[in-house]
Amino acid sequence: MPSMNAEFDLDGRLEADSIFVVDGPLSQFRLMNDSRYPWLVLVPKLASAREWVDLPIDQQCLLLSEINIAAKALREFFPCEKINIGALGNIVRQLHVHVIARTSQDEAWPGPVWGQGKAAPYPAIALDALIKKLKAALERY
Amino acid sequence: MPSMNAEFDLDGRLEADSIFVVDGPLSQFRLMNDSRYPWLVLVPKLASAREWVDLPIDQQCLLLSEINIAAKALREFFPCEKINIGALGNIVRQLHVHVIARTSQDEAWPGPVWGQGKAAPYPAIALDALIKKLKAALERY
Repeated sequence: MPSMNAEFDLDGRLEADSIFVVDGPLSQFRLMNDSRYPWLVLVPKLASAREWVDLPIDQQCLLLSEINIAAKALREFFPCEKINIGALGNIVRQLHVHVIARTSQDEAWPGPVWGQGKAAPYPAIALDALIKKLKAALERY
Repeated sequence: MPSMNAEFDLDGRLEADSIFVVDGPLSQFRLMNDSRYPWLVLVPKLASAREWVDLPIDQQCLLLSEINIAAKALREFFPCEKINIGALGNIVRQLHVHVIARTSQDEAWPGPVWGQGKAAPYPAIALDALIKKLKAALERY
């Protein structure tokens, strides 16, 4: 059974595609470096966790509460029509949950964002400012 | 705030694309009529619910417990490599959560299943048998 401990080791692809924002009680909150979509990824700091439904139920609920917080922060800065929540992990097996603010103007609408086109990284200055804003909001909730 | 009441009215597209299996405490469990993927959809019986994170927290957790049950039933009948969980709703706005058993042999692997190709409906006899098996399993959990 996965447990929170020093053996947590962030998957290399998640590390390359996203930027650390803040630590929650269970998960790292990370921003996907793709300016096409306001998109947070929650990565539980658990060694070898792969499936949400295989976590102990208290950790499952904690992850759900972190999803609520991620959605709240996204909505604060990005008016959107839908929040998309996804736990897929077909490529990156380390457990991670996507929380994405969608609008009918975005590139993949109304389809899912995964596997659509190429990520458009944020300009460095915009990224720094956004990380700061999100960190402040996430720490407030 | 969405509440469970007689005003629940299943979206026409969900009704056309999936078959009722069983009622949970919160949601209808429905099987997507697409033999390419073992795929359950949970539809909370709530009038006007659209976003998981906008439900009262006790209903959010109840939905999570139903997702656990759906995953357990799928795994019982379909050995799989990953469980995909998704709450998108960009097209059908009525709140619904997808729980899908994925294997590296399936048509959309490793991408998401949504918007990929055309559904392959089950033959009628296979569908009846599968619904019966799933219903029995879901009622057992």
